[in-house]
Amino acid sequence: MFFEGSEKKIEVTVIAQAPSLRSLGKTFWQEIVACANAEILSVISNADCDAYLLSESSLFVWERRFLMLTCGTTTLADAALAFIDKVGESAVEFACYQRKNEYLSHLQSSSFDEDLFRLREKITGNAYRIGHLDSHHHYVFCTDKPCYGVLEDTTSELLMYHIRGEAADYLRSTGQSAQGVRQLLRLEDGFPGFEFDDFLFEPFGYSVNGIKGDRYITIHITPQETSSYVSFETNLDLTLYPQPVFANLLQILDPGSWDVIGFNAGRDTKGYPPHLCLGSCSLSSEQGYNIEFSHYQQMCHEVLIPEKL
Amino acid sequence: MFFEGSEKKIEVTVIAQAPSLRSLGKTFWQEIVACANAEILSVISNADCDAYLLSESSLFVWERRFLMLTCGTTTLADAALAFIDKVGESAVEFACYQRKNEYLSHLQSSSFDEDLFRLREKITGNAYRIGHLDSHHHYVFCTDKPCYGVLEDTTSELLMYHIRGEAADYLRSTGQSAQGVRQLLRLEDGFPGFEFDDFLFEPFGYSVNGIKGDRYITIHITPQETSSYVSFETNLDLTLYPQPVFANLLQILDPGSWDVIGFNAGRDTKGYPPHLCLGSCSLSSEQGYNIEFSHYQQMCHEVLIPEKL
Repeated sequence: MFFEGSEKKIEVTVIAQAPSLRSLGKTFWQEIVACANAEILSVISNADCDAYLLSESSLFVWERRFLMLTCGTTTLADAALAFIDKVGESAVEFACYQRKNEYLSHLQSSSFDEDLFRLREKITGNAYRIGHLDSHHHYVFCTDKPCYGVLEDTTSELLMYHIRGEAADYLRSTGQSAQGVRQLLRLEDGFPGFEFDDFLFEPFGYSVNGIKGDRYITIHITPQETSSYVSFETNLDLTLYPQPVFANLLQILDPGSWDVIGFNAGRDTKGYPPHLCLGSCSLSSEQGYNIEFSHYQQMCHEVLIPEKL
Repeated sequence: MFFEGSEKKIEVTVIAQAPSLRSLGKTFWQEIVACANAEILSVISNADCDAYLLSESSLFVWERRFLMLTCGTTTLADAALAFIDKVGESAVEFACYQRKNEYLSHLQSSSFDEDLFRLREKITGNAYRIGHLDSHHHYVFCTDKPCYGVLEDTTSELLMYHIRGEAADYLRSTGQSAQGVRQLLRLEDGFPGFEFDDFLFEPFGYSVNGIKGDRYITIHITPQETSSYVSFETNLDLTLYPQPVFANLLQILDPGSWDVIGFNAGRDTKGYPPHLCLGSCSLSSEQGYNIEFSHYQQMCHEVLIPEKL
C-alpha cells in the first residue's frame, strides 16, 4: 500500500527570445512528461496558462515558464534534461530543481546527488540541502545565470505529513468522491473565481489543479495510513490573500508535522495548530531569490503503533 | 566526510545443549565478523565474556549469547545468516535483529525488508517497524520460539543525534586522544570496576567497550558535523544503577534529538534536557519480551545551516 507522495519539482523560465512554451503544444509536453514516467490525464487552459493534471502530479505551462511536479518513483530529472536538450541551454533563463523529504528514499531510482551530477553536465548552478538528514529536509538546485524578472514571483508550498481526524478518514474511505474532496478542502470557497480540474485515484489519492489568470494552486493527496502526505502549492501572494490558506488546510487535515517552503514569500504562522518549529532556514540565491524552509511538529506526544512487517 | 554511524545489531542466545560460544574461538568469530565486512581490532576478556572491538563497532561473546553491532555500510545480516548456518537453526534459542534509523538509507547495501526476507529463509519470527518513516524509527525482528531465560535480561540503548557544544567540538578536533575522550565521557567515574578497551579512528570517531563480570557497556561516536551520531548500550539495569547514566551522557553531548530503546528496561527521563517526546511505543514479543522505543527532541528552535552540495 506504500506510495511515495513527496514530489520532485522543476521550474524553468526561458528568455524572451525563446519560442512560447505554450505554442510547443501538447505533443511536446507529452514527450517531456513521458521522460519522467508519467502521463497527461487532462488539461484546462485560460488566456495565461495550460494546467495539465498528470498521472503523478501536475504540469503548468505559461508563455515563458513551466512548472512540473511529480511524485512516486518518477524520474523528473530526466524530463528536465530532455527539456534542456530540446530548447537548448542558452534559452533557459532560470531553472530550479527541488526534491522534498522522501519517506523511502532507497526506493527512488536516483538520489538527489545523482540527479545533480547529471543536471550539472547540462547547466551550471548551486545546490543545497536544507534540514537534517534524519528529519525533514529539502534539496534545491538553482541555476546561477543573472536574471531579474523571476525574482518578483512568489511561490508558497505547504507539505503535510501524517494527516489525522475526520478528513483523513474520509480521504481513506471507499465512498469518497471528487466533489466530496473539493468540499472537504473548501476549494470553491477558498479560491473564488478559480477553474478546477481534479482526479480521484484508485483505491484512493486525489489531485487537483486550479487556475485563475496567471495564478495557480495545486493539491496532491496521498492519504495512506502510515505514510500520508498532502502537498499544497501556489503562486498566489498569501500575505495579501484575504484567507489564511495554510492555517485552513492545517485545521482541516490536522497533520502531525508539516514543512513550509517559500520562494520570496512571507511567513505567517497565525492560525497554525499548537506547534514546535523544530528548525528553519533562510537562503538567498545568487540572483537574490529568497528561499525559506521551516519544519513544524504538532506540540503533542504520539503513541506510536508498531507496523508489522 | 559522511559516515553512517547508526548501527545494525544482532543478539543471539543458544540453547543449553549447544557448544559454548566462547569456546568457538577467535578464528570462528573473525569469520563471522568478516561476513559483515568488518574486522576485529582488539579484544578484552574476563571470566564471563570476550569483548571484541571491531573496525565498525563491537562484538560481545558470552557462553550462550553473543551480541554484535556494526555501523557504516556493513552487512550484518550476512554475519547473522553465517552464524545460523554454522551452528544450525535448532541451536538458536532466541535471536533479535535490529536496524536503527539511518541518515542515508539509500547508501546501504540492503534495506531492512531485504534483510528480513533472507533471515526468514533460515528462521521464523516477527518483525516490526516502530516510528514514522519521515522521523526517527527502528526496525526489529525477533524469533518466535518459546524461551524463558533471556526474558530476565535487560538492555538499554541511547542513540544521540546532532551533538553540540564543547564535547562535540573536542570530538571533532585534531588534538583529541583516547584518554581525553574517556575523561570527557567520565567513563572511569561513571562505571567503576569496568575494564575498558577503546580506539580512536582517523580523522576522528571513537569506540569503547567496557566489561565487568557479565555486564557490558559500549559507546560509538561518529562526530561528523552534519550527521553526528553517538550510541550507548548496556545490559546494566539502569533503574538500579547509582548514577543517571543517560542523563549524564545527554548533559555532556547535548544532542538535538535522541532515541531510547529498552528491552525489559524501565524508563526514567529525570535529568534529561528540556524536551518534547515526539512519540513512544511499547511492544511485547510473543515470549513476553517488552520492547520500548521513545523519540525525543530538544525543546528549542534550530536555525538550520544550508549544506552546499
